[in-house]
This record gives sequence, C-alpha cells and structure tokens, in this order.
Amino acid sequence: MAKSNKCVVVKAHAIGIPGPENFEIIECPIPRLLPGGVLVRMLCASVDPGMRGWVSVEPNYMTIPVGTVMRAPGIGEVVESDHPNYSAGDLVYGMFGWAEWFAAEAKDIYWKIDTGIAPPPVWLGSLGINGITAWIGYRYFGRPKAGETLLVTTAAGSVGSVVGQLAKKDGVRAIGVAGGAAKAYLATAEFGYEQVIDYHGTPDLAAALRIACPEGIDIFYDNVAGTQADTAFPLLNPKGRVIQCGSASVSSWLPWPTGPRRERDMIVKRLSWHGFVVMDHADLFADALAELSELYADAKLCTRQDSLDGLENAPGAIQYLYSGMNTGKLSIKIAE
Amino acid sequence: MAKSNKCVVVKAHAIGIPGPENFEIIECPIPRLLPGGVLVRMLCASVDPGMRGWVSVEPNYMTIPVGTVMRAPGIGEVVESDHPNYSAGDLVYGMFGWAEWFAAEAKDIYWKIDTGIAPPPVWLGSLGINGITAWIGYRYFGRPKAGETLLVTTAAGSVGSVVGQLAKKDGVRAIGVAGGAAKAYLATAEFGYEQVIDYHGTPDLAAALRIACPEGIDIFYDNVAGTQADTAFPLLNPKGRVIQCGSASVSSWLPWPTGPRRERDMIVKRLSWHGFVVMDHADLFADALAELSELYADAKLCTRQDSLDGLENAPGAIQYLYSGMNTGKLSIKIAE
Repeated sequence: MAKSNKCVVVKAHAIGIPGPENFEIIECPIPRLLPGGVLVRMLCASVDPGMRGWVSVEPNYMTIPVGTVMRAPGIGEVVESDHPNYSAGDLVYGMFGWAEWFAAEAKDIYWKIDTGIAPPPVWLGSLGINGITAWIGYRYFGRPKAGETLLVTTAAGSVGSVVGQLAKKDGVRAIGVAGGAAKAYLATAEFGYEQVIDYHGTPDLAAALRIACPEGIDIFYDNVAGTQADTAFPLLNPKGRVIQCGSASVSSWLPWPTGPRRERDMIVKRLSWHGFVVMDHADLFADALAELSELYADAKLCTRQDSLDGLENAPGAIQYLYSGMNTGKLSIKIAE
Repeated sequence: MAKSNKCVVVKAHAIGIPGPENFEIIECPIPRLLPGGVLVRMLCASVDPGMRGWVSVEPNYMTIPVGTVMRAPGIGEVVESDHPNYSAGDLVYGMFGWAEWFAAEAKDIYWKIDTGIAPPPVWLGSLGINGITAWIGYRYFGRPKAGETLLVTTAAGSVGSVVGQLAKKDGVRAIGVAGGAAKAYLATAEFGYEQVIDYHGTPDLAAALRIACPEGIDIFYDNVAGTQADTAFPLLNPKGRVIQCGSASVSSWLPWPTGPRRERDMIVKRLSWHGFVVMDHADLFADALAELSELYADAKLCTRQDSLDGLENAPGAIQYLYSGMNTGKLSIKIAE
C-alpha cells in the first residue's frame, strides 16, 4: 500500500466559478477505515457543474468546508471494508473525493458497479448521477407524453445527452440548445435530438427556437438559466413543465441578477416549475438505473467521455467544464 | 317580464387596470334561451382581480371580445330552462355576465345554490370560485403539513381570507400581508392569521417578514407578485411550495417587468412553483365545496361582503378593487 495520499483540498470559497486559486494539492496520510464504512483506492472522480455551489461563498444545499478534501462522486476499489455489503476488490460508486484514497461512510456509498456492463467513467455519467438526474427531471417532473415538444439546454452535456435519448425512446420531439457547432452536431447525431441550435452561431435565438418549436414547448429541461431560459419561456405551452436542473449560464449570483418576471406566465399558462437535487430522490434511483442500463445494453444510450489525467488537473477542472471545451462527461482519472 | 336588458359591454381592451373608459352600459333586448341552457334574471355578479386579464390587450387564458357583454361569475334566478337539472325558480351560480338578464349555455352553469346555507353573495365568494380557488391552491398545490409556516399576500382578500381559515383548521401557522391597517386587523381578527403585516405601514417588509417567520416559509400563496414576492422568496425553506394565484401588484406587463432571477432558489431550495386557473380543476370542486360548506355551517368560515349597488357602478368596479378600498368580497348587486 502507498504511504501517502495525494488530495485536493478546498483552499478558499469562490465568488463565481472556482478555479485553481480555490484549491490546493497536498499530501496527507492515507485515511483510516471508518466504522461501518469502506476504504477505497480511487480510480476516477467526477467533475460536475453543481460543484460550483459546493465551494461557493454563497449558501448552498451543500458546502465543502475550507481545508477539507473536495468531495466528488467517484469510482473506487474497496481495499478494506467494515460494511457487510462490500468486500475488498469490489468496485463501488459513491460520494467520495478528489483524492487517491478515501474513507467513506456507509451513507456515502451509492452502489457497486459492474465493469462487464460498462467501464468506470460511464458509471460516473450516463449510468451514474448524471443519467439519474436526467431521468428524474425528465420522467418524474417532466411527465412526458408522446408527441410533445421538449427543449433542453446544454443538450450535449452529461445530463442533456441522456434526456435527449430518453425522449427519442418516448416519441417526444427533443430540441436542444448547445454551445458550439461540434456539440450541436453531436447532440443531433448521437443523443436523440431532432434539432439542436448552436447558440454561439445563432444571432437570433428566439427566431431559431420559434422555427424549431412550431407547436411551442411542453417541457423545458433547463440546465443554464439566463438568456436562453428567457428566450424559451415565451414559447411554453399551457400546462408546460419547467425543470430547473442547473443555472450554468449565470456566472455569479453576487450581486443577484435580474430577469423577466415569471408570475404572469406561471398563471396564464398554468405552468409547473420544479427545482430539484438528485440526492433527494433516492427512492427513484433503482427505476432510473434499470431503464438506463437496459438502454445502454441495447446500444441505445450513447455516451461520450472526457477525462483529465491525474489529480494535478483537478483544481482547474470546474473552470474547464464551465468553459464548455469538454465534449463529454468530464472526469478525472486517478488510477487504473 | 321587463322589456329591456341593461348590460355592461366591453368597449376597448385595456393596457393596465381597466376603468370606466373600457366599458359601456347599453340597453339591449332580453336574450333568448339557448338550446340546453337557462335564461337567468341576475341577482348579483362578481368583481375579481383576474378580470383585468380578460379585458387586457395582452394574450390571456380568456379574452372577452370588444362589443360583447362583460362576463362574470354571478348568481341568478332561472326564468326559463331547457336543461333537465334546472327549473324556473332555481337559484344558480355560473359564469354569467354584468347584465340584468343572461342566457347561459349548459357549460356556463356551475351549480345550484341554497340560500338556506348562506345568502347569494357568499356563494359568489367564500363558497364560490374564490373559496374554491383558495382551497385548490392551498390544499392541492400547497400540500400543507401541521406546524408549517404559510405566507399569504392579500391576506384579507376574497381568496386570502379563506386560505387563512383553512390553515388555522390544519394547525398551519398562517402569516399574511395586507394593504392597510384595517385589512391587517381584519385578517388577524377574523380570517385565521396569526400575524398580518400591513405593507403600507411597514417601512422594512423584509425585516417584518423575518420576524414573523422565524422558521422560514414552507408555503407561499402569492396573489400579488412584485416586490412582496421578491421579499418572500429569500425566506422560503427547502422543499418550499410557491402557489401563484395572482399578480395584482404588477400594474402592467407592457413593457414586461423584471425582477430577481428565480433559478438559483428553485434548485438550491428544491422549490415547486405552480400557477393555476381554477377552472382547470373542476374535478376538485366537490371536495372543496364540501369542506368549505362544512366550515361555514360550523361558523368557522368568516366572510366579508362589499357590494356595489347597480350595474351603473360596474365599469369602475375593477379599478375600485385594485385600489384596495374594498374590505370584503366585491360584488355588484343587480336585483333582489
């Protein structure tokens, strides 16, 4: 066993998008197995848009304290276990951290993964929290019906790529917005979208959306907020459903930004609008994973991976994600 | 039978709050009974905040065409009937109009009223669409639990007055906002509220709300939008429910007003936000009316009426309602 544990710790909470100045790479001892938990050797760890909130100076549903290891969903190999369901050698998925070794409590372990079905990075993305997030937002809050029109922002992202493929399966017309021609192409070619608008290359997004959604929008799965959302709202149909999964386009909430008031649309169109955090819905995980694994096994769930090599790249990883340069689920490779 | 029918017709659609310039009083022939409908002699008709939208130049879920009788929920006596459920002499509640006589189609008739339970104006308000609106927003979308905190804007209004009394019955802590000390007093003394803030007399509404809601807000039943809503949102608790029933404080949506963005609150607090129009929920009317009638019979549903005498006062009635000078459910008395 190695003697040292390379870790990425939070150095300072961020205003806006966290960058290398907010993290520090340190060497510390390998942690001890916790009662009822497992000690894992990390193979890979996720980079997610929601992490911005975890290390923000602003209040959030979860905040990682300064001086502690940055938390992240990850895949690790169990090295020691004090939990009856897990043994040394198992590969497990859980809320671990950006570190070579992580001592997880029982509540942090999600489930075992089977590399016979898919390789580890897929279990972090389309068959992991991102895929489940897509499923819960779309199926549980979106209540889709065949023939409806769905609009998804960041259509080529780790969540949007799964939403489009679920919609295609359902006969729901999926229209996407993505940043850049390559992502727009990818979402159309691989992720089930009928049409994807590259908002970088589209001078008039409102006109493009009107043309793409001639019958209006029934479900708006929004990952970005901001002007893309402002452009979508007027196209929402009566009894439309808005799913707020992210707010990636808003770079800072200090000062708090303004936008068009929503109250009139809410009433006149009888909208429902739900924000959600995937971890509140553990009761739906098994259903979600069953449908997603089946799609994957049937080769109807395309996935794309973008991996940063080594924890040295972790401090800049959230910034890289928000730059939009990745073209697949972003993760950090820690070990083989 | 009278020879002539005094009617209030829409003269021009309004920008902002409609006033006398948007209506015209004319004499026209008594309408003919429609197939399957009833001809009623109107006793009283309602004045509701939502009517602003019905005669607005802006698109709405319902628009009354220029040159036609202003529609309004009302109580009338059946004079002639071609409907098996209604006979001459019955008192009926329905979507009629600001007129002495109204020929209603079957779909416009809500239900018979029993003046042995309550007098006609109560059937327009707390036992009518306003009470049912309160019930659907609060019970169906609000999903209240005993011990929670509820905030209601226009707490002394025709809807707010019923919401407070339902909450009191449930052991939900109802806090209100009302315009003026008299309304704030009334809502506390009669409508079940634990505390009501007079926003006219309160220099710092945010501080007053924080003090009134030390455990935050679980359910926000909003009738006004605008700055009162902006002050309430930061106090919403995780899994809070927002019910958008009206937007009375916004005097015009041309140009479209802006306000604080909601996306971050939606996600971080996992909020649900519903706009609704009561007529979409006819399947819930019987349940609502059963509970409300029982409360009324047990003298646990206080109501206040404010009646304008005669159709001559109808053209200015919506303006009067938005001025906030009424202290009870506003209706127009048309005949005995």
